[in-house]
Amino acid sequence: MNFASDNGGPVHPKVLEALAAANDGYAMGYGNDPLTAEVVQGIRDLFEAPEAAVYLVGLGTAGNVLALSSLVQPYDTAFCTPMAHINVDECNAPEFYTSGAKLTLVPGTDVMTPEALRAAIAAEGTRGVHGPQRGAVSLTTVTEEGNVYALERLQALCDVAKGFGLPVHLDGARFANACVALGCTPAEMSWKRGVDVAVFGGTKNGLMGVEAVILFDPKKAREFELRRKRGAQLYSKHRYLAAQMKAYLDGDLWKDLATRANRQGAALRAGIEAAGLEVVNATQANMVFFRATGAQHRALKAGGAVYHIYGAEPAGDDGMAIGRLVCDWSMSDAAVAQFLSMLRDVA
Amino acid sequence: MNFASDNGGPVHPKVLEALAAANDGYAMGYGNDPLTAEVVQGIRDLFEAPEAAVYLVGLGTAGNVLALSSLVQPYDTAFCTPMAHINVDECNAPEFYTSGAKLTLVPGTDVMTPEALRAAIAAEGTRGVHGPQRGAVSLTTVTEEGNVYALERLQALCDVAKGFGLPVHLDGARFANACVALGCTPAEMSWKRGVDVAVFGGTKNGLMGVEAVILFDPKKAREFELRRKRGAQLYSKHRYLAAQMKAYLDGDLWKDLATRANRQGAALRAGIEAAGLEVVNATQANMVFFRATGAQHRALKAGGAVYHIYGAEPAGDDGMAIGRLVCDWSMSDAAVAQFLSMLRDVA
Amino acid sequence: MNFASDNGGPVHPKVLEALAAANDGYAMGYGNDPLTAEVVQGIRDLFEAPEAAVYLVGLGTAGNVLALSSLVQPYDTAFCTPMAHINVDECNAPEFYTSGAKLTLVPGTDVMTPEALRAAIAAEGTRGVHGPQRGAVSLTTVTEEGNVYALERLQALCDVAKGFGLPVHLDGARFANACVALGCTPAEMSWKRGVDVAVFGGTKNGLMGVEAVILFDPKKAREFELRRKRGAQLYSKHRYLAAQMKAYLDGDLWKDLATRANRQGAALRAGIEAAGLEVVNATQANMVFFRATGAQHRALKAGGAVYHIYGAEPAGDDGMAIGRLVCDWSMSDAAVAQFLSMLRDVA
Amino acid sequence: MNFASDNGGPVHPKVLEALAAANDGYAMGYGNDPLTAEVVQGIRDLFEAPEAAVYLVGLGTAGNVLALSSLVQPYDTAFCTPMAHINVDECNAPEFYTSGAKLTLVPGTDVMTPEALRAAIAAEGTRGVHGPQRGAVSLTTVTEEGNVYALERLQALCDVAKGFGLPVHLDGARFANACVALGCTPAEMSWKRGVDVAVFGGTKNGLMGVEAVILFDPKKAREFELRRKRGAQLYSKHRYLAAQMKAYLDGDLWKDLATRANRQGAALRAGIEAAGLEVVNATQANMVFFRATGAQHRALKAGGAVYHIYGAEPAGDDGMAIGRLVCDWSMSDAAVAQFLSMLRDVA
Repeated sequence: MNFASDNGGPVHPKVLEALAAANDGYAMGYGNDPLTAEVVQGIRDLFEAPEAAVYLVGLGTAGNVLALSSLVQPYDTAFCTPMAHINVDECNAPEFYTSGAKLTLVPGTDVMTPEALRAAIAAEGTRGVHGPQRGAVSLTTVTEEGNVYALERLQALCDVAKGFGLPVHLDGARFANACVALGCTPAEMSWKRGVDVAVFGGTKNGLMGVEAVILFDPKKAREFELRRKRGAQLYSKHRYLAAQMKAYLDGDLWKDLATRANRQGAALRAGIEAAGLEVVNATQANMVFFRATGAQHRALKAGGAVYHIYGAEPAGDDGMAIGRLVCDWSMSDAAVAQFLSMLRDVA
Repeated sequence: MNFASDNGGPVHPKVLEALAAANDGYAMGYGNDPLTAEVVQGIRDLFEAPEAAVYLVGLGTAGNVLALSSLVQPYDTAFCTPMAHINVDECNAPEFYTSGAKLTLVPGTDVMTPEALRAAIAAEGTRGVHGPQRGAVSLTTVTEEGNVYALERLQALCDVAKGFGLPVHLDGARFANACVALGCTPAEMSWKRGVDVAVFGGTKNGLMGVEAVILFDPKKAREFELRRKRGAQLYSKHRYLAAQMKAYLDGDLWKDLATRANRQGAALRAGIEAAGLEVVNATQANMVFFRATGAQHRALKAGGAVYHIYGAEPAGDDGMAIGRLVCDWSMSDAAVAQFLSMLRDVA
Repeated sequence: MNFASDNGGPVHPKVLEALAAANDGYAMGYGNDPLTAEVVQGIRDLFEAPEAAVYLVGLGTAGNVLALSSLVQPYDTAFCTPMAHINVDECNAPEFYTSGAKLTLVPGTDVMTPEALRAAIAAEGTRGVHGPQRGAVSLTTVTEEGNVYALERLQALCDVAKGFGLPVHLDGARFANACVALGCTPAEMSWKRGVDVAVFGGTKNGLMGVEAVILFDPKKAREFELRRKRGAQLYSKHRYLAAQMKAYLDGDLWKDLATRANRQGAALRAGIEAAGLEVVNATQANMVFFRATGAQHRALKAGGAVYHIYGAEPAGDDGMAIGRLVCDWSMSDAAVAQFLSMLRDVA
Repeated sequence: MNFASDNGGPVHPKVLEALAAANDGYAMGYGNDPLTAEVVQGIRDLFEAPEAAVYLVGLGTAGNVLALSSLVQPYDTAFCTPMAHINVDECNAPEFYTSGAKLTLVPGTDVMTPEALRAAIAAEGTRGVHGPQRGAVSLTTVTEEGNVYALERLQALCDVAKGFGLPVHLDGARFANACVALGCTPAEMSWKRGVDVAVFGGTKNGLMGVEAVILFDPKKAREFELRRKRGAQLYSKHRYLAAQMKAYLDGDLWKDLATRANRQGAALRAGIEAAGLEVVNATQANMVFFRATGAQHRALKAGGAVYHIYGAEPAGDDGMAIGRLVCDWSMSDAAVAQFLSMLRDVA
């Protein structure tokens, strides 16, 4: 019953098989191997983006901050939500990789509205050289609080950005889960909406550690390659990144794994509501947030459920707090059933 | 016959086995897993450094630049050779991670002398706040040109650094090969000589991609942890880095692999000299540099030998050029024999 | 009737006299001249801080960002108000000089409350290495919206910072105006409250361009000197900065000039209120904010009043907007009277 | 007899007069004043560059590093001599402002040869993404060791840069002295040779502290403005920078002052040679380097001559060392005569 994070579970067996299959003889380093060429083409095909520049990196942070650094100048600011991972959970990596660009927090909740984005961009551009310059918009879906942007909303947000001439970055930590939740294609969730650079994350969805950064317009490809090397993110034994991504693409494993995770998320939501507890946010993917008392949380954890309290700890036995449950691809029916059984007991 | 680089070969089967063994159930992310704790302790034991702070990263560049950034301030300079990897092959990653510190190139060849180091440090400290400040000394062994520092030389270089109050960083790309070549312990090649921060590289020696950064004085441990996260080098699924390092430590696999690579290097050297060609540098480890004509190089490559010309390309058929041969752990006797056979034919 | 900014007026004649007096023969550069030594001591005396390290720079931005860079690490965040000059009006200079540290905006108005500061700091420290680290608190008085912190409030804010072990930076753009408004000594408004680094600004108060950065604890003096040089803020002909500061200190010219500016601010406030218009904020120094209709603002500007609309422009003739009036030391009684006369006409 | 530096002397009286003349009433800040517009046009006229973007800053370091930062990317390197001020005397300010770009030192003396430059650029571009990228060439004339590039040499160096597609920066610390030494126009010494960005220095030539950065191609003008602000180099009371530059331009004061300084340099050279001592370098401007024994240097300094030993201090009484004499615009005939008289005595 480990719901702590979708980076806590094992990698899918096919990934290990792919690593073993790739482990044969010599290969050129730094991405100049045939397997890398194959997965680059595979991602272009998947995203219906034959011109896209595609790069693999080993961590989500790296993918996102390299992507941002190719979109904003040091005197710019990128617009994101206050809860965005790049704001709260990267220990200033975005500021580091962009040589000191800023993040402007679009007021509101975890879900950005086009109106709030428009107002934030408008407000940021009124002081000439004195203020930070408008640089880019950074979106995340599934959001940190488990929400999935409808395609119309995504379109509307990109439209606002484009109205100001700003490029859009899509953080890809749970790209697959959002895509599956929407039942759309990767292209429909990215460049067809107006996304300029997307990260197609694999690490939280069954890979060992690979993310693909996709520049739909390849004119910054060379700059990206240099920033990747300078950022200490260019792997010499690159074929092992490519092998993981190949397993992810083959037979749409990415979709299969996200579907599994989302299904367990749905089961948890249904079960929690059936038990009479409150589910927070209209989450549609693999994360579930629920409100319970301190005593209830303690009982669940004592029973073996592993998960994080989101936000403030409960004040005493009766104080309420939000639990965050994250399902990875390997979450078993048994674990979900056991958790819900415990929950019914404590409810 | 692939001698292009020791990052071109496969990973050792035990590494894949260790990854599979680690792929069981849930684990805490970001290094908070038992396997990581185990290999941290394993490295402390191997280095006879019970107080050391030990961190795993996935690339050699990352290990070295994070190490440097914990030793030098942005207004400092680090002393290295002109051929040092951090100078010529990292696309300004050291400058990036140190927020703009400088490298001062100690004049001379690939092998630093204590006299040249002393003179370079002395010269750099004469302009008060106007000049770059003396920050650290960065050494590499095996060097880029295949040389291994004798322990006495390493001691002398560290002594010079310490004479100026400067810490010493040891680039660890081929730490194991140097250690085996010297027949010494890791401790004897690092902190017992005066090294403050060492990188114990595994990527070039049979791992998929893991390096250990070892801070013998742990007082900068927390700073390093923050710089690692900010540098986008903290892996969420950290157990897979730890698993590789565990395989590397178990039964001294690191030593076994380096021994194999060095032995093939020795065989190549002996064979090249026996064939009447000139071996350049008194290399003792897994890299061999040899001088041949353009025609000879072309014939060898036409015969299937893969390797890089080091420095300038040969001018025509008769012009001389240096070939660089690097043996990884998996280099076979057959490949070495075949290469030497061809060499005898063209010599 | 120029109320656009207190950097728009002339420098005080004594400053020009001091420059001329200093313009005699040769002097050592970079602050190694007797005049600089004299004003450093003068500032120590004025601030009752015999141990303080004191540095002169030529711009307020430079003073503040160098001060910040000596207090926060690149993985830290500094706490300030959303309206703080370092947040909205420095085009990412703080992020640049700190090598990518962040600013965390303390929710609320232009005036920080201890409660909001405590909550913001508490919230920022809950994610281990993943979040930005708590670095420093940056305060400004007179604030951007013309408010002056009472000494008790300043004390309370510093106490909160100190409760978390954080140093406090005091932005000094209008230090003199605040000090005069409070009727306190510079020491009472700085280190006696808990300020660690203060900027004693002169540029907005009659100098040509000089600010003194005061490190009450000199242990970071050398680091500051190196950051100043690296930041391209160490003036070779330093005596001309010192000369200006000497004029500023002599006979407490700084106090005289701020008193003049504040008095005109008070006259404006009184006159605006007497005319029946609303004065916004309980401003006590040299800035006045007043609410008027678009038609009224237009009439005032047509009549020759120069000032900025603060925030949104008025919507049409009847829409309300806030005008910002800033008095510099040279603001004449006649100009104030003329403005108020016009105001009475349009009111 | 102060020959320590040309930043040690007084500013020219006309500069103070210009400051006083500018000190009248209100002016828009940050360069939006009529005086700034006037001197921008004046510099365009002087440089025969009607399209150029021109910016004033208060220090030479600032001008040079902002110029460089507009020419090189963080993953680039700029080529300069080992003795270049940006390499040895700026405490990593170039690395700071360029977000971590590198300097590649063109081997040789203080005077760069086209052959050495070509070889250095060629060598730097052979490692793909692994090496620093070729960014720009930075030249200085008068060089640090007092040499002046002939126009043909300047042309040849720029031609080499252009052959590689690289822009050229001209450090302007002693631009006027070089220009006067060559008897050419500013245009002939800059864009007509191939210089892309020049700094027209005034600080070492009689101003209090003003340098003009001239972007002959204005396409990076906006970027420069943002980098200037972000670099904390945009002065609010900008008219006082403009006033100094106006005095400098009026009646070609810049040329008059440099002529004076150069003439004293020539007098020193002639006198030293006449006294039988060795003049080092074929200096043609306001700096003179001469070789003397430790005893001779001591005698000269005891007699009141102020100057720096260049390079190593003399070893004892008989050891030789090089003295560096710098003449500023205000250097008197009497001082030169007195120095030479002493020199004849000690020779």
